[in-house]
Amino acid sequence: MFKSILENVREKSPLIHNITNYVTVNDVANVVLAIGASPIMADDEDEVEDITSICQGLNINIGTLNKRTIPAMLKAGKKANELHHPVVLDPVGVGASQLRTKTAFELIEKIHFDVIRGNISEIKTLVSHNGTVRGVDASIEDAVTDENLDNCIDFLKAYAKQLNCIIAVTGAIDLVADAHQCYVIRNGEKEMSAITGTGCQLSALITAFISANPKHSLAAVAGAVCTMGLAGEIGKTNMLDNEGNSTYRHRIIDAIYHMDGETLEKGAKYEIR
Amino acid sequence: MFKSILENVREKSPLIHNITNYVTVNDVANVVLAIGASPIMADDEDEVEDITSICQGLNINIGTLNKRTIPAMLKAGKKANELHHPVVLDPVGVGASQLRTKTAFELIEKIHFDVIRGNISEIKTLVSHNGTVRGVDASIEDAVTDENLDNCIDFLKAYAKQLNCIIAVTGAIDLVADAHQCYVIRNGEKEMSAITGTGCQLSALITAFISANPKHSLAAVAGAVCTMGLAGEIGKTNMLDNEGNSTYRHRIIDAIYHMDGETLEKGAKYEIR
Amino acid sequence: MFKSILENVREKSPLIHNITNYVTVNDVANVVLAIGASPIMADDEDEVEDITSICQGLNINIGTLNKRTIPAMLKAGKKANELHHPVVLDPVGVGASQLRTKTAFELIEKIHFDVIRGNISEIKTLVSHNGTVRGVDASIEDAVTDENLDNCIDFLKAYAKQLNCIIAVTGAIDLVADAHQCYVIRNGEKEMSAITGTGCQLSALITAFISANPKHSLAAVAGAVCTMGLAGEIGKTNMLDNEGNSTYRHRIIDAIYHMDGETLEKGAKYEIR
Repeated sequence: MFKSILENVREKSPLIHNITNYVTVNDVANVVLAIGASPIMADDEDEVEDITSICQGLNINIGTLNKRTIPAMLKAGKKANELHHPVVLDPVGVGASQLRTKTAFELIEKIHFDVIRGNISEIKTLVSHNGTVRGVDASIEDAVTDENLDNCIDFLKAYAKQLNCIIAVTGAIDLVADAHQCYVIRNGEKEMSAITGTGCQLSALITAFISANPKHSLAAVAGAVCTMGLAGEIGKTNMLDNEGNSTYRHRIIDAIYHMDGETLEKGAKYEIR
Repeated sequence: MFKSILENVREKSPLIHNITNYVTVNDVANVVLAIGASPIMADDEDEVEDITSICQGLNINIGTLNKRTIPAMLKAGKKANELHHPVVLDPVGVGASQLRTKTAFELIEKIHFDVIRGNISEIKTLVSHNGTVRGVDASIEDAVTDENLDNCIDFLKAYAKQLNCIIAVTGAIDLVADAHQCYVIRNGEKEMSAITGTGCQLSALITAFISANPKHSLAAVAGAVCTMGLAGEIGKTNMLDNEGNSTYRHRIIDAIYHMDGETLEKGAKYEIR
Repeated sequence: MFKSILENVREKSPLIHNITNYVTVNDVANVVLAIGASPIMADDEDEVEDITSICQGLNINIGTLNKRTIPAMLKAGKKANELHHPVVLDPVGVGASQLRTKTAFELIEKIHFDVIRGNISEIKTLVSHNGTVRGVDASIEDAVTDENLDNCIDFLKAYAKQLNCIIAVTGAIDLVADAHQCYVIRNGEKEMSAITGTGCQLSALITAFISANPKHSLAAVAGAVCTMGLAGEIGKTNMLDNEGNSTYRHRIIDAIYHMDGETLEKGAKYEIR
């Protein structure tokens, strides 16, 4: 099924509105282009409703949150909800400051998100209304492992049910859950954590995938997660001697640029629980 | 003539003030360095007059327009006009929101631009005071083609005459027109449209080229357009197996870094109409 | 000694808070990851105290200074001082506008910086309370050379004594001075000046190095400077035919990713004066 899901993205080429951070925004734009969709970045309160209205999906990322863009996030999200466009939240670093935590809750309260994607610490913070995270990486004690996998799946399904949305948790093992099902995904490479913004890129990919596959949201999100992880695997095999994290980033986006449905279908490593 | 135009840029190494978007700003800085000029980015209302005064050219780009920087754009533009520095406008996404459209018109009303560079949709929006664009790409029905080429040339010359400036339209065929002449340029590769920011980079290059060649503005703008397109052709031949849009971007800037006057003179594909 | 200094960075993996410009921020994040530390970017006045409290070091860079983030810089700096976290200032372009100059002085007056890193023009501007710089590059008449080396060293030691901090000046010859000693460092390649942000990256590396080596600050700063320069040398040897400044940037960060203590110890070229 991932084959047709990816092909839908390339064929429909959805326009994706991103309100995102200034650290990884360029890679976000290039990864959206790599998958065959189109990005637009706009974060001024006075234009986000216009912009999101001409788009097919909205991606909100709080990575460099500032008070100027919070009202823009709220306006864009409400407008996208009105228009029944899919909306994705990437709660980067939630728990690291009161501003991020408070804002994430306000966003979740006032906007219906189709997908929330974060690391396990960020998702736990959202659930607990409380918590700390170390930068933007999952704290080690909070990793999803084979040992705690059953617990994690139950936990995510419950939260997905509560919010009526899809929760995507990425790490060594990736989980994509709605209230009923959970994809357990084992694509990716550990070196991806030495690149800034692979999570931000994935959230934008997810937005493109669900925008192009509105009737198969859960599979679309899982397909996006597999695409990113598989691109990490392919990109690694394309690394030349002496290349490191900075070039690896480009090799991953390049692999997404060349990804086709059959490669994804064959390379995706997942089970549904 | 492009040979001496390019050599002037490398020799004079103009300092270029960029008020630009946060998506492609890093590539803009590196492409300005690649051509042998120097970039400075500054967008606070309280410093743009100081900054533009020590520069030789100003590049204004509305790609992530926000209300904080609009007054800065106006102040910098007026100061640059006073100092007779060349000023370039890149009206990214004009027509996609009322804020962008209104701001673009205000800028054009209050500042004299030496060059406006956009895709054909953006330029049509400016002319029509009205229109829609899809993200930052020319809508297909608005492409410059061999069939509508004569019409497009007449249209651009008329608008160039009205504004007393040079209009550069980029796409599969690039056009650079003043009231009397139009360069029709056929450099470039279609894969460049899968990279974010090649247009933003070109606008910064144009600023560097006209700053270093004040007496040959039209040829300087055409030379910058040919440089970007030719770098796209050279960069493509330097791509390794499995490389995609993310690496292509660097191969293009690298080609600009190595571009010399003779290569440009020989590789430029254009006619003057 | 550089061997253990670098190994401490990789082992302790300090979390570094960066309030920095939007031009080079992505490279700053990736270089911090490359050296084995973790970056977090946050610049809203309402969250910087929270963020800096969970970090081990703070890096303030005024490269795209704006009035919104000045209060955030002040709050973060004061909080970091309270917590005895090392704080680094990169006074990008100080002297190019009154806003930058005034802000740099205000920061130095209200915050104790452990390290100030800039080019010789920027440092001279700070000392003279007055001056001009051309973009972000040292003006040629202000370069550190073998001829004026003794004078430069005396000048930096005096300023370091006055501010009770370490002054790092980078250029063709790099100098790292406190009141008593000065490292004279001859690593690096001249082509590094054609890349935007190598200075910004170095300031972030310095923050990581001193955060992980609190008892050997001067050697830690010198170690960071040698790491950056040596990575420039190694990255240059890894360049393929036709690669230029855009790819060179990645080859440098990649070299930092692979840098180990022995390579640094062997490759560092310095004397202590």
